[in-house]
Amino acid sequence: MTTRAEILRVADGRSLGPGPIALAVDVGGTGMKAALFDADGRLVEAMTAPTPECTDSAAREIVDLVADLHAEFARTQPEHRVAEAAVVLPGIVDEATGTGVFSANLGWRNVAFSQVLTDRLGVPVAVSHDVRSAGRAEFALTEGMPENAAMVTIGTGIAAAVMVEGRLISAGGYAGEVGFSEVSVDTAEGPFRGPIEHIASAAAIARRYSTRSGTAVSGSLDVLAAMHEGDRIAAAVFAEAVDALGAMCAQLVAVVAPEAIVFGGGLSSADELLDGVDSALRSRLDFHRAPRIRRASLGPVAGLIGAGLLTRHR
Amino acid sequence: MTTRAEILRVADGRSLGPGPIALAVDVGGTGMKAALFDADGRLVEAMTAPTPECTDSAAREIVDLVADLHAEFARTQPEHRVAEAAVVLPGIVDEATGTGVFSANLGWRNVAFSQVLTDRLGVPVAVSHDVRSAGRAEFALTEGMPENAAMVTIGTGIAAAVMVEGRLISAGGYAGEVGFSEVSVDTAEGPFRGPIEHIASAAAIARRYSTRSGTAVSGSLDVLAAMHEGDRIAAAVFAEAVDALGAMCAQLVAVVAPEAIVFGGGLSSADELLDGVDSALRSRLDFHRAPRIRRASLGPVAGLIGAGLLTRHR
Repeated sequence: MTTRAEILRVADGRSLGPGPIALAVDVGGTGMKAALFDADGRLVEAMTAPTPECTDSAAREIVDLVADLHAEFARTQPEHRVAEAAVVLPGIVDEATGTGVFSANLGWRNVAFSQVLTDRLGVPVAVSHDVRSAGRAEFALTEGMPENAAMVTIGTGIAAAVMVEGRLISAGGYAGEVGFSEVSVDTAEGPFRGPIEHIASAAAIARRYSTRSGTAVSGSLDVLAAMHEGDRIAAAVFAEAVDALGAMCAQLVAVVAPEAIVFGGGLSSADELLDGVDSALRSRLDFHRAPRIRRASLGPVAGLIGAGLLTRHR
Repeated sequence: MTTRAEILRVADGRSLGPGPIALAVDVGGTGMKAALFDADGRLVEAMTAPTPECTDSAAREIVDLVADLHAEFARTQPEHRVAEAAVVLPGIVDEATGTGVFSANLGWRNVAFSQVLTDRLGVPVAVSHDVRSAGRAEFALTEGMPENAAMVTIGTGIAAAVMVEGRLISAGGYAGEVGFSEVSVDTAEGPFRGPIEHIASAAAIARRYSTRSGTAVSGSLDVLAAMHEGDRIAAAVFAEAVDALGAMCAQLVAVVAPEAIVFGGGLSSADELLDGVDSALRSRLDFHRAPRIRRASLGPVAGLIGAGLLTRHR
């Protein structure tokens, strides 16, 4: 889980640009991150809290927690009085209406978060989607980012943020939901045809390695480590995931033609991932433009910074 | 090939909306269509001409032909003096720079059509892409079209026009180039994995039927007719194409989440195509929004009308 110290370290020296003093909250699968940005757009303080469990009251508990974080910043940072806020949520999020449309992990449908939080906090509160928010930050704060780009985040699931002609697209919150996209690749166990998340998510990589090797691992980074130590099963599982990611990226390229695809999530630290996807993707392109494959630069703080940016781009 | 009478019939009663008197030209694979729109946006006259062969001089010959059409309208319709023009081209077309980036069929690379035609005709000339131009017309002139939509044209090849949040996207001309997109479906001959154009284009459907039945057909509409007469091979070839189109549409849905997908090209006249794609697509979606599957309404004149619209949306 990301710590306060890590948030402060990654954010150090970056600025959102001038604007209202802002509260940003990123509601993750297991942890919530909160940050206070000053009028210059500098992150001045951060806090973390556990995300509520998936229950009927999860949405209400999140609203309570955001209000608590707001109150705590007001108490400890009285010189920075929050004028706007933005909250990043998982699932399907419609930024235009400020609605949490659907979250399988937290169990809600059609919650008017923007309105409820605005009423509760007494300042305008925008909402965004976790992956789209991370993309917003990476696209805005990375030097040399083209105006057509995508960010693919590999975690428990897989999703993409898509920028077309300089605009982050949402389509009611459904754009970039590529986790269920069908890919077809060859594997050591025969042809695989199924959702990209079943072969290339961090969870799938760990599970496929555990099943094939008989050795339980705690996550995909263990598979990466085993590969680096010469484990052939780890290398095959990783290569198959990379091939599948190349196939999924080819779908992105055909539809929206990004000039760069940025990878986020723990696995993106591996050069083998970036190089492998580049090669798997190019083998599937014809007359298309091959995008540059890049590593995300803001790590697990991207979503939080993207939320902060929402208070700068009204 | 589309005739003058057909252009006049489809365009009858439609209007682009008021604007400059405009010349529109659609450069197709075998034929060119030209139309003169009056200041009310009504199509007042049309002409056709064969498209030049693929040679080193094809781009120059097309410029000459557009100038000839312009001169012919000036001679026959002196009361309608053209103030703007738009030309629709095949291949990769970058509307923003007015460039024909690449055409495999006509053999050019990086031709500054907009500039060359503007100099030659003495009026501003915009350029667009054939499929994107057809989408522009269908999206603008069809009642009840949502702001997120795609148009898939099935012809010799397959390509899509994509509208996101009310904006037709181009991405340097590369958006919607889905013809090479990999799909994986089961067929009577075993699993197929390859470009959608190799199984679901009009050309592929005719070729696959001819190979499997031993009976040569002149096009995909013959396969459709055979299917209607109870030919099982025709039914299987058609069903496999439809399944592949469903798989490709699922890729579009994951990336840009259209609320409607419009099918163009001769095969779209078949209810079996629309119903089959709807079913094949829904079987591949999870929490996504399922788009409505619709038939294009402007037939082979859509690209020409879309060109006319370019002179209305500056």
